[in-house]
Amino acid sequence: SRRGRRTRRARKEPRACSLHEVQLTVTELGLGYDSDETVSFRYCSGWCDGRRRNYDLVMEHVRLGEASRRRARRRGRAKAEPAHHGPCCRPIKYEKKMSFFDNNERFFTIKNVSAKECGCV
Amino acid sequence: SRRGRRTRRARKEPRACSLHEVQLTVTELGLGYDSDETVSFRYCSGWCDGRRRNYDLVMEHVRLGEASRRRARRRGRAKAEPAHHGPCCRPIKYEKKMSFFDNNERFFTIKNVSAKECGCV
Repeated sequence: SRRGRRTRRARKEPRACSLHEVQLTVTELGLGYDSDETVSFRYCSGWCDGRRRNYDLVMEHVRLGEASRRRARRRGRAKAEPAHHGPCCRPIKYEKKMSFFDNNERFFTIKNVSAKECGCV
Repeated sequence: SRRGRRTRRARKEPRACSLHEVQLTVTELGLGYDSDETVSFRYCSGWCDGRRRNYDLVMEHVRLGEASRRRARRRGRAKAEPAHHGPCCRPIKYEKKMSFFDNNERFFTIKNVSAKECGCV
């Protein structure tokens, strides 16, 4: 049943950091090219909790970033310097090239658009 | 004047990702040790905006993480899988060892507590 599927999905463990893929037109990438060509955009998403070191545990406990965020708010700045207390799920390799024709039949090659491999860094 | 200093400080450019240091007792690290010994804890903080690649620009434009966050909220989960749209300021090298006596005069050596070098990853 529909409800059964939803329940199973809701109970699922959060996924570990890994490579995901979506189909987008080049225009939808938002890099300023006007092209209806469809490309596979691969990106990194997921949790890195299992990869935490003593450093991350200290950062979470001490919360050095929070005082900085409070100061930034008092000074009217939108954001303080970020201090991550956990590894980030990020690309560790990129697809070197992506090529396409725009809607004016010009050929472009752009670099480091799509992720090739992800890691907890 | 006091006001002048504040204004200058508020206008200052946000700092780039770099190594920072605080003095903490081992107890304050929050790793479960009871020790009044003071240690230097070094950590990474700051912005990585200058290091953004095409990948990050696409991630910011497409906001793949946000749909996931909305789904997570609907399903009653606190947090969705994180998808960063910018490099993280993180340790790329750690101080291999930190040694101390606890308040019961036991000697401990713990690893990967303090950052040694930071990078935008």
